[in-house]
Amino acid sequence: MNEQDRRVFEGLFSPRVIALVGASSDEKKHTSRPQRSLRRHGYDGKIVPINPKRDEIFGDRAYPSLLDVPETVDHAFIMVPAAAVTESIEQCIERQIPVATIYADGFAEAGPEGLRRQEELVARAREGGVRILGPNCSGVLSTRPSSALSVNAAIEQLEIRPGPLAVISQSGSMTGGLLSRGLGRGVGFSKVVSIGNESDLTVGELTDWLVDDPETETILLFLETIRDAPRLASAARRAVEAGKQVIAYKLGRSDVGRRLAASHTGAMAGSAEVGDAFFRAHGILRVDNLETMFELPSLLAGKRPAKQHRVAVMSTTGGGAATVVDRLGSMDVEVVTPSTAVVDILAEKGIDIPRGPLTDLTHAGTRADVYGAVLDELVASDHCDLVLAIAGSSAQFQPQISVGPLLRASHGKALAAFFAPHAPEALEQLSGTHVAGFRTPESCADAIRAWSQWRQPAEAPSPNSAALAMVADTISGLNGRRPNERDSAAIFAALDIPTAASVVVRETDDAPISAMEIEFPVVAKILSADIPHKTDAGGVVLGIRDAAELAEAVKSIRENVAKRHPEAKIDGVLVQKMESGLAEVILGFRCDPEVGPVVVLGVGGVLAEIYKDIAVRVAPVGLDEARSMIDEVKGLAVVRGYRGLPLGDTEALAQAVVAISQLANDREALISEAEINPLLVLPEGAGVVAVDGLVIGSPEQ
Amino acid sequence: MNEQDRRVFEGLFSPRVIALVGASSDEKKHTSRPQRSLRRHGYDGKIVPINPKRDEIFGDRAYPSLLDVPETVDHAFIMVPAAAVTESIEQCIERQIPVATIYADGFAEAGPEGLRRQEELVARAREGGVRILGPNCSGVLSTRPSSALSVNAAIEQLEIRPGPLAVISQSGSMTGGLLSRGLGRGVGFSKVVSIGNESDLTVGELTDWLVDDPETETILLFLETIRDAPRLASAARRAVEAGKQVIAYKLGRSDVGRRLAASHTGAMAGSAEVGDAFFRAHGILRVDNLETMFELPSLLAGKRPAKQHRVAVMSTTGGGAATVVDRLGSMDVEVVTPSTAVVDILAEKGIDIPRGPLTDLTHAGTRADVYGAVLDELVASDHCDLVLAIAGSSAQFQPQISVGPLLRASHGKALAAFFAPHAPEALEQLSGTHVAGFRTPESCADAIRAWSQWRQPAEAPSPNSAALAMVADTISGLNGRRPNERDSAAIFAALDIPTAASVVVRETDDAPISAMEIEFPVVAKILSADIPHKTDAGGVVLGIRDAAELAEAVKSIRENVAKRHPEAKIDGVLVQKMESGLAEVILGFRCDPEVGPVVVLGVGGVLAEIYKDIAVRVAPVGLDEARSMIDEVKGLAVVRGYRGLPLGDTEALAQAVVAISQLANDREALISEAEINPLLVLPEGAGVVAVDGLVIGSPEQ
Repeated sequence: MNEQDRRVFEGLFSPRVIALVGASSDEKKHTSRPQRSLRRHGYDGKIVPINPKRDEIFGDRAYPSLLDVPETVDHAFIMVPAAAVTESIEQCIERQIPVATIYADGFAEAGPEGLRRQEELVARAREGGVRILGPNCSGVLSTRPSSALSVNAAIEQLEIRPGPLAVISQSGSMTGGLLSRGLGRGVGFSKVVSIGNESDLTVGELTDWLVDDPETETILLFLETIRDAPRLASAARRAVEAGKQVIAYKLGRSDVGRRLAASHTGAMAGSAEVGDAFFRAHGILRVDNLETMFELPSLLAGKRPAKQHRVAVMSTTGGGAATVVDRLGSMDVEVVTPSTAVVDILAEKGIDIPRGPLTDLTHAGTRADVYGAVLDELVASDHCDLVLAIAGSSAQFQPQISVGPLLRASHGKALAAFFAPHAPEALEQLSGTHVAGFRTPESCADAIRAWSQWRQPAEAPSPNSAALAMVADTISGLNGRRPNERDSAAIFAALDIPTAASVVVRETDDAPISAMEIEFPVVAKILSADIPHKTDAGGVVLGIRDAAELAEAVKSIRENVAKRHPEAKIDGVLVQKMESGLAEVILGFRCDPEVGPVVVLGVGGVLAEIYKDIAVRVAPVGLDEARSMIDEVKGLAVVRGYRGLPLGDTEALAQAVVAISQLANDREALISEAEINPLLVLPEGAGVVAVDGLVIGSPEQ
Repeated sequence: MNEQDRRVFEGLFSPRVIALVGASSDEKKHTSRPQRSLRRHGYDGKIVPINPKRDEIFGDRAYPSLLDVPETVDHAFIMVPAAAVTESIEQCIERQIPVATIYADGFAEAGPEGLRRQEELVARAREGGVRILGPNCSGVLSTRPSSALSVNAAIEQLEIRPGPLAVISQSGSMTGGLLSRGLGRGVGFSKVVSIGNESDLTVGELTDWLVDDPETETILLFLETIRDAPRLASAARRAVEAGKQVIAYKLGRSDVGRRLAASHTGAMAGSAEVGDAFFRAHGILRVDNLETMFELPSLLAGKRPAKQHRVAVMSTTGGGAATVVDRLGSMDVEVVTPSTAVVDILAEKGIDIPRGPLTDLTHAGTRADVYGAVLDELVASDHCDLVLAIAGSSAQFQPQISVGPLLRASHGKALAAFFAPHAPEALEQLSGTHVAGFRTPESCADAIRAWSQWRQPAEAPSPNSAALAMVADTISGLNGRRPNERDSAAIFAALDIPTAASVVVRETDDAPISAMEIEFPVVAKILSADIPHKTDAGGVVLGIRDAAELAEAVKSIRENVAKRHPEAKIDGVLVQKMESGLAEVILGFRCDPEVGPVVVLGVGGVLAEIYKDIAVRVAPVGLDEARSMIDEVKGLAVVRGYRGLPLGDTEALAQAVVAISQLANDREALISEAEINPLLVLPEGAGVVAVDGLVIGSPEQ
């Protein structure tokens, strides 16, 4: 963090002088609230209300404008209407105030005119050296030192417990709700930021700074969209290195949710998959249940992603345990049976445990010595990586039986606890400890699922410079022409993706058809960047067996296309070897508006499209990640040995995924989108072959 | 309820004299607990401990055996070890005690020997006129009159609020947890039953009785399996008629969960789908989240299933509302935009609402008059069938703003409330009212999903007697022989399902091949009930174009099969017209071990199998239900007009589903399983045609 950043960070979270621009003396108004809120929570710095109509507000000396304030102001909270904001920012610039938080709405969220106003404001502020939080932001809270600078009623009224969680929320109206729910679940907070429109300061930049904040151990994000993917990505990676965690709850998993969040939808990959891919790539834990945000942190405190994710489950209630284990099963979390060593050691102590994935101690286990002995052995054993301890009614009336042993257990392994009854006291006893307590079976399972999917972020593979140079050559060879199918094939070939052999028959060629070097049978396809749907245009003939049929096909293709697309520029007819494989896949690369370059793998054909059976990753990917994509696509079971079907060359497929994902490493960003459809997967050892596909150059090219 | 049932019901829930067989005077023992629990909760009848070693226990006169008790005993709670239970039951018989609850385990749940013991016990009890609850059951609780007859520690210690919810739990160790969670969420209970092994009294019978219980409005089931589907089905249907609800939480949605619940897995349809089909058929609401059990009842109180399920959502916090609406979207719940009438009426009152599915009032709506006006208009409008009202931080500190209008709102429409913050007081104010308050966005969405899927149970279609008689004739014509493919086709034809034309070439036929009446091209297949996998056996040749090819094919099929299955009884070679359709479906009928006859529809082919894309219903089904199955199978989009593909004859497909489901109406249960694979769907108006399939007769036939 450089000197200017440090001044901004301190202005936001530990300001010694705060100016409240537009502060009201009417207690009923929102704009009167920050003053009360700051005082109530023990802010011990100076508060300077700015209000041209008052000399004093609630005991603080007021000034007509920022320009009149004698002190150096660390943070200006601007609460005047949108139209008056620019003037306030000008004053901030003049007074060299490092950061201004803007409450007013009516900017980017209000449409194009608001967006323009916002861009002008930010440009002026940048020029003048003032950073902006907001606009459309309800404020900032810090607990150590205390600074509750917010118009939020909940923040004023809550009893706020300091603690290790920081919150950054894109929803201003949810900041109070998040804080309140966390406090209700017994956790404490370091900082809470309503990030507003992110016109200048973004989720990524704040996250990055909070990684270095000694008061913060876990950063919770309430997201509607991702506006600054690269910065957030690097911040999240730094967090993992620092032994801190970033946990995201993101809206927009459904169409209606996406419309509400007003974010963009990708073409084939929906936002949810792309968001998940982004989180996964950079070591961010994504939770599905709201309260998991506050229950998950203890499970991870001080930990880095585990290499294996085997879960041991012990319980005194079979039915209670099943409420969690059943969900874990449906989330593909591996629940493991205790090792023989564990069984034997416990047997020596007179404790007989069942040989199955659920260590159900039944009612006989509701004794602290028995519960503790089993827990300690599971924690000590290397057959599992997380221990989930469940207790029944005893947790409500005799929490010492389960909570005692949990609190005494070793800190080495991730420890989760779920209590079948309503057991607020037992949960309270676990708050702030190394044991994560869960109130519902659903959030317990959600947290363990998130933990099990949390991976050490992979190093981005280094650029395949040779391949990228060849791609660049091919593109520049087009002289600004849009790539047609054959150019696209050349680009795939440059990336080392095998393509079907082909020749082009041009308008002027008549003789060469019989002299071709491609074995029959062949396919003939119209070659034109202007005709995306070749089949619909009558531009494709399959299964051509000899030269006579080929001549016929070329003629009919030319006639069809001339009739249906008279305006299209025709580059010829592409004659390609007929290929067949064990499976047809779709392999694509594109730049997602939220997260940037992604690679998408799916099965070809209409059924796979209906089932949305795809795997998405942030590009570029390495070979391991490509293999995990292949495992993730359910329909690719047909080349993984399902029901005795022959094995496909999944290794070659993984290499093709890696290769196309290299387009993300092209600094010039020559290509905005590429899709091979279909890419045929041949039998093991025989590779893959691209049969059709298209590359779309970047608009700038 | 007949006289004997009434005595059993009263013995269970309002006994005047309870005998505690095996009652202990040692306070540390479980078997001492019922006495304390009964007294603590105000049981005002007589308690008779049975213990040969004591004259008195905790102030109650004790007797050596049931035979020595002078009073008429209404309920015997038998807490002696398994081996001594039979003797106690004999005494119950002698004393004509109507019902005995058995605590001991070591019966059916312990394996075959225990099952045998249990069956003997029940047979003896039935003979002697004693009904049994359990074994392996922790007891029974009633609140009005109070009778807390249980060994459960939680039941002893909880403050139990009387109320309209009854619980029947297959997990004894969860009864306390369920009660405790419900009480923690502010609801009250009428009855709580640990149903144990259901050796005699079952979930279905208890549910049936509780439908007539004036103290009970909603019956909550915590299920691991379904043991008495017919009785539960009729009970649930009676509940709907009575304006009461049955809500089920069922374990076993994942493999590991199913293994834990030790229930059976179906062949193609997993237990979860079959369970869902059963619940849906009979008007049972299935919930996914544990706490939804206690939050959903208020949403339904006194209501019957709605005809439409359009949800209106209003909120003062956009982010908070999105946490629920996003989930509703992913569950295909329809969230509707307010009608123009609503918008206009509110505009007249000076309230401007957005034209979109979320009526976000923003902070401006945090006034009781605004919130109330919008709520009242949504409740009064016929554009929606349920109103979900969401509030932000105001719900925590000024609950009157949202809770006030909610409590004053009309009772006519289903009303749900979710509060973004931790707002226990607001939730408490809604307890026991006609407004369902939800603590988490997840259970709120789960409840609304359950409500939206709740249907008036359909009348079972009446038997197609003519078709069933033809099926019976066909089966009896086999004279005990297992049906081969051609026999199966005859059965499908008897059910009015069109089948591909075919002839059989027998060993002795040589000439008739050329004289066939089926147009080429044809398919030849080995005909034998002993060869289920014809293709693997080299027993299928496709695309036969003329008589010469057919002769060749028949010869090679015979040779292949003779080599690979020398032991198989061969009925000939089936020669069938080559058919092709727009889609291949699998249509099946089978008797599920849990719920009985079901019909299953899926898309054919390996991909659909991988995606488990099926629809399951309890058989028989009517045409509407069959149509809804077709809509539910995603892959059938290819015949529903997806991407401009030609429409298939879905109406004929629906008729085929109805037809095969009629096998459930066969009183003789001649057929245990039938599968058509594939059934081809032809273009609209052209019908369907069964190309292959197999019928399996019942073992008894």
